Amino acid sequence: MPLRPVSAAEIESLAIGAWILGTGGGGSPYLALLNMRKLYREGARVSLLDPMDLTDDARVAVVSNMGAPLVGQERLTDPHTIARAVQMMEEYRGVRFDAVMSLEIGGGNSLQPFMAAAVLGLPVVDADCMGRAFPEAQMTSFAIHDLTMYPLTMADVRDNAVIVARAASWKWMERLSRKACVEVGSIASTCKAPRTGKEVKECGILYSTSKAIGIGETVQSARRRHRDPVQAVIDAERGRLVFRGKIRDVARRTTEGFLRGTAKLDGLDEFRGSGFELAFQNEFAVGWLDGEPRVMTPDLICVLDTVSGDAIGTETLRYGQRVSVIALPAPPVLLTPKGLEHVGPRAFGYDLEFKSLFA
Amino acid sequence: MPLRPVSAAEIESLAIGAWILGTGGGGSPYLALLNMRKLYREGARVSLLDPMDLTDDARVAVVSNMGAPLVGQERLTDPHTIARAVQMMEEYRGVRFDAVMSLEIGGGNSLQPFMAAAVLGLPVVDADCMGRAFPEAQMTSFAIHDLTMYPLTMADVRDNAVIVARAASWKWMERLSRKACVEVGSIASTCKAPRTGKEVKECGILYSTSKAIGIGETVQSARRRHRDPVQAVIDAERGRLVFRGKIRDVARRTTEGFLRGTAKLDGLDEFRGSGFELAFQNEFAVGWLDGEPRVMTPDLICVLDTVSGDAIGTETLRYGQRVSVIALPAPPVLLTPKGLEHVGPRAFGYDLEFKSLFA
Repeated sequence: MPLRPVSAAEIESLAIGAWILGTGGGGSPYLALLNMRKLYREGARVSLLDPMDLTDDARVAVVSNMGAPLVGQERLTDPHTIARAVQMMEEYRGVRFDAVMSLEIGGGNSLQPFMAAAVLGLPVVDADCMGRAFPEAQMTSFAIHDLTMYPLTMADVRDNAVIVARAASWKWMERLSRKACVEVGSIASTCKAPRTGKEVKECGILYSTSKAIGIGETVQSARRRHRDPVQAVIDAERGRLVFRGKIRDVARRTTEGFLRGTAKLDGLDEFRGSGFELAFQNEFAVGWLDGEPRVMTPDLICVLDTVSGDAIGTETLRYGQRVSVIALPAPPVLLTPKGLEHVGPRAFGYDLEFKSLFA
Repeated sequence: MPLRPVSAAEIESLAIGAWILGTGGGGSPYLALLNMRKLYREGARVSLLDPMDLTDDARVAVVSNMGAPLVGQERLTDPHTIARAVQMMEEYRGVRFDAVMSLEIGGGNSLQPFMAAAVLGLPVVDADCMGRAFPEAQMTSFAIHDLTMYPLTMADVRDNAVIVARAASWKWMERLSRKACVEVGSIASTCKAPRTGKEVKECGILYSTSKAIGIGETVQSARRRHRDPVQAVIDAERGRLVFRGKIRDVARRTTEGFLRGTAKLDGLDEFRGSGFELAFQNEFAVGWLDGEPRVMTPDLICVLDTVSGDAIGTETLRYGQRVSVIALPAPPVLLTPKGLEHVGPRAFGYDLEFKSLFA
């Protein structure tokens, strides 16, 4: 399988781009980035694998740090816990993995497979199964394609380890793994149901790692050229500016293993006089302009610092921040009727018919 | 290993005696008894194995139906779910068990190993690790002896299956398994950490199955001879009558995977004019006579129907029942300083120095 080494500079770009694709969630990539810098300083090099180069029977570990983003700011992530989740799966299934991939390319979970890969000496597949970040287990392209949802392995920092050996449905997988995650402190490293190369090729969201690196490079390039990084991302990714303003209020609670809440914005520039409200469950789910639904999941709702273009996570929203809310197109599989059942506004409890900004 | 077949009559006696040893918990044996009658009608015969006949390296499955007793009255127990928990453990560890034993001899959990054994064609070890029933994972003689607490396998009726592969402590094992149990509806079949023959012989509560059968026979014999079955149990087991009266009030709630509450009694006969209060967490934990602590865990607090001698579980307490509260001596290991840390009144949140009725 042909491999492409990922440079330290690309890791930096990945952290920037994935944080934008995180739509507020997936966890801040900062701590994972510090880990990757250290691993690279110590000589580690991780390679990226084109998913179409996977053999049909290749064994792929799908990893993520699961839990509430705010907790991830307090209990620091480390490469060995995520690697342990992968090793648990190898022991449980009695197999060796050929590669690691990300559950969600959004936020710090874009870097979790790189940390595991650096420890385990495996390549990372250029793919994920969300094309962004989502809070729940059944919100993946693999679930939309009805692939098997078990087993799942989970490790925490205290030497607790849980395996969900079977689950009656994707929702049961979410419930069982979530409760275990909450009990160990609402953050845990997980290895999801292993996938074959064929499953990744047919049901994954392909080249999303490269895409995240590219978005990061777009931001960095605009900064170097003193251009507007927000506009640069919109132009490069065919996105839309949804709102620009100042954060007036944030209500946030860590509950049931999620970070839930709302943020209210007062308009600036062309949006002066208008108000915007965002609701989130780890990720931004719906945005209302002057009380009317304006943008909703699965369209990507990204809140960026208006000046730097850096993404702002649901755990780092603060009063007074000057932000631009942009929308980016969702992967097509999420927009199918089956996809919308899993990740549309009703899947988050909002009685709204999905209407894409890109329709 | 020499085996002694258990007769259908002994199964009936076991159900009666174990329900008394359940100290209100372990789940009503009635539904498990119906299952055993059916299995015996269909030709099954389960044998009892003297624990001292276990070879040191024999592999013993320790089983229980975990959860809140009240729920066990609604979601009916069946032999295949408990057998599945054992088979999960065999698959997970890649071993075959030589025998099954009870986690707790109290209540329906005395019959769970018989159901598993009938399905799997294994003998039941004449032992348990509580000598009664207790609500939590760390309340066993194996925990008091600091044996390893993992792995644990758990199966529910929906095809959910969880393995606690590692736990940082016995309390962590309790927390992780309890949350999974609550999530599937506060009742689940479990196979606890496998034990060797040596561990059972050195750290188990031996011959408790025979003891429960004997208590049941005592009750049945007294009934046949029109003697007082309550007094017969007290005489045979060197117990004490603690209170006799009528149930005036029951407060009961199923919470966090347990059945918690209190029962208040008005005295009858020699206790006329006195009041008694019982507090329970699945099992009766403390009894107060006229507001003063009178009897407390780990002494066995058993509430029996005054006329029939049948035990009354915390889920079957009802207004108006005429009951006798008796105490039976606890297994010695529970009375050691280490034992009391695990199962004394403070382990249940009562700030009381343990004082045995049998000291």
